[in-house]
Amino acid sequence: MTHPVVPESHADLLTRPLFGHLATLNADGSPQVTPIWQIWDGEFIRFTTTTDRAKHRNTARNPQVAISINDPDAPYRYLELRGVIERIDTDPQGEFFDVLARRYGLSYEPPVGDHPRRVILVMRPTHATHQ
Amino acid sequence: MTHPVVPESHADLLTRPLFGHLATLNADGSPQVTPIWQIWDGEFIRFTTTTDRAKHRNTARNPQVAISINDPDAPYRYLELRGVIERIDTDPQGEFFDVLARRYGLSYEPPVGDHPRRVILVMRPTHATHQ
Repeated sequence: MTHPVVPESHADLLTRPLFGHLATLNADGSPQVTPIWQIWDGEFIRFTTTTDRAKHRNTARNPQVAISINDPDAPYRYLELRGVIERIDTDPQGEFFDVLARRYGLSYEPPVGDHPRRVILVMRPTHATHQ
Repeated sequence: MTHPVVPESHADLLTRPLFGHLATLNADGSPQVTPIWQIWDGEFIRFTTTTDRAKHRNTARNPQVAISINDPDAPYRYLELRGVIERIDTDPQGEFFDVLARRYGLSYEPPVGDHPRRVILVMRPTHATHQ
């Protein structure tokens, strides 16, 4: 089924284990952007973070986000999705973190004691640009 | 000389020809983020765009930006710089575009007639985060 927002031609940039760069809004309205793991289920894009990080603080305050992913094999090819963090789920056992860690081939362990603070940002894409 | 904002340990992410992901603010305050070429002179980071693109419209209205660059050889290693587009210069002969095209190894030509609209976004970094 075709998604109403995500173009079929660029959906591989979500299904491949590529880093996205997720932009959020700081308290003063300025943008913040850092690399992030992502996983797409055909409807939502999910990210793992912890409650003490800017990505969580910012999206809990203002859900507007945008993500940019380009193709390492053809770097002018990219997908930008804008949307909202529709929901923030808890991940107290770090199970979702482990799913993403396996997807990306973990090369570091999360800090000990990190799990109670771990959350899942659930993004609904509402607008796409691509090249 | 050490830059007051850019950490020495991560300056290579600016000097290498890596794609950045530049976040700007749309008219409604929501974030916009897409891949972009960059060049760093030790004080400013410069980007090429055209006056009909979101990056120019957005930064002409609101100069607040942030850029994220990660290391393709060690993708958890990244640099985020926040700052402002301090100045927008014109590039009517496309000379600055050509400098960046050579830096990145151009694999496409700019659209014919693009030059009159070509501009240089000049960013002053004011804050860094890195890992």
